[in-house]
Amino acid sequence: MTDEPKTIAFVLYPGLTLLDLAGPLQVLGALSDLGLPYRAVTVSERKEPIGTDTPMSLLATHTFAEIPKPAAVVVPGGGTPTIRALTDETLLSYLRGAAERAEFVTSVCTGSMILGAAGLLDGREATTHWLYRETLKEFGATPVAKRWVEDGPVITAAGVSAGIDLALHLVGRIAGDEVQRGVQFMIEYDPEPPLGPLDWSAAPVEMFHPWAEATLRQGLEGHPELLARLLVHV
Amino acid sequence: MTDEPKTIAFVLYPGLTLLDLAGPLQVLGALSDLGLPYRAVTVSERKEPIGTDTPMSLLATHTFAEIPKPAAVVVPGGGTPTIRALTDETLLSYLRGAAERAEFVTSVCTGSMILGAAGLLDGREATTHWLYRETLKEFGATPVAKRWVEDGPVITAAGVSAGIDLALHLVGRIAGDEVQRGVQFMIEYDPEPPLGPLDWSAAPVEMFHPWAEATLRQGLEGHPELLARLLVHV
Repeated sequence: MTDEPKTIAFVLYPGLTLLDLAGPLQVLGALSDLGLPYRAVTVSERKEPIGTDTPMSLLATHTFAEIPKPAAVVVPGGGTPTIRALTDETLLSYLRGAAERAEFVTSVCTGSMILGAAGLLDGREATTHWLYRETLKEFGATPVAKRWVEDGPVITAAGVSAGIDLALHLVGRIAGDEVQRGVQFMIEYDPEPPLGPLDWSAAPVEMFHPWAEATLRQGLEGHPELLARLLVHV
Repeated sequence: MTDEPKTIAFVLYPGLTLLDLAGPLQVLGALSDLGLPYRAVTVSERKEPIGTDTPMSLLATHTFAEIPKPAAVVVPGGGTPTIRALTDETLLSYLRGAAERAEFVTSVCTGSMILGAAGLLDGREATTHWLYRETLKEFGATPVAKRWVEDGPVITAAGVSAGIDLALHLVGRIAGDEVQRGVQFMIEYDPEPPLGPLDWSAAPVEMFHPWAEATLRQGLEGHPELLARLLVHV
């Protein structure tokens, strides 16, 4: 008797932030290497190279249509292209369908804003990149300043690198602490930020807020109503 | 008067570990976003999709031939395919040429074994993934158990996720602490491994050593001499 492995779908869309995707993909992709009944796949609308916010394009293994009902879904975030994706009905519709039977609906960074735009954060606690955290209110969510936030099947991570922590947590949920620790050793995740942990009392808000606002304005050109609602919060 | 930006070349080869690449690419790619005179590029032998150790392929922006003399080079590591790359003369020859005038020659994880195979670690202190650390002796290097090791222009990182720390350190070297801190906030790098830091006294050596040995045997099929020398150290 062989069980079909459960599919974890990593959602690619143009301009995503590479590390949002790569952290969880590396961590959760290790489940099958360890003999666990999961398989990671990458999905995009079409089988074409997808640009990222780095000088590199990606090729997914599957189209949205080929993986309509994954067991788990991971949505990476990004800057202007991610804000643009908030009104990408093809992507949103895929996520709504994928979420219907998924055990875990997850995001990294501003990927949670996409989940929100798809209506999947309504009434839930969630997080996102620190610069955009309050915008989650506009999607019916309660923003929480944590590294990752779990509310039922929905688990959202803070900015970019937080996807690694979320994914390790998810490995623990799926396969227990011993496997989680094994994966942590495998990726030698024993972080030493050269300048130490972030001092949130010294966050360079003035440096970043104009950028956050510009990102919203560029990403939501042609969508003045949503733009106005989100701008209140950055 | 406009200065040409300095080029940071990220080296792609088949089967690399995605996160080894994505961490530094995200961090160092931010330099140009911040208006600094650097540009990141990805280079591969040919302009074809490059498979990774995750279910996703990559497309580089340039060929090796197009970027012969970068200002900095970053070599990601991986498992069996990286060991196989130790005897890839096209790759090694590219790295030797690229290193000649580079200000920084860097690697993540077992990427340092590739630098070693290219003769670039001779007489230097270096590090790599913890499972393979002692193999660096066979390339004339002195292995050091640190998150990253800087010896002249050569900076090597420990396993996989250590590339993020190395890259932040390099941003600091290039542009100072304030910029480094800005990038750290941008990627919200305030790590919270769910199970805490790694306890090296409890490293699952018995779980991993058979895998490390198999990786060497598979990657160095047809190269019995190098295989025998490296096997001594895992």
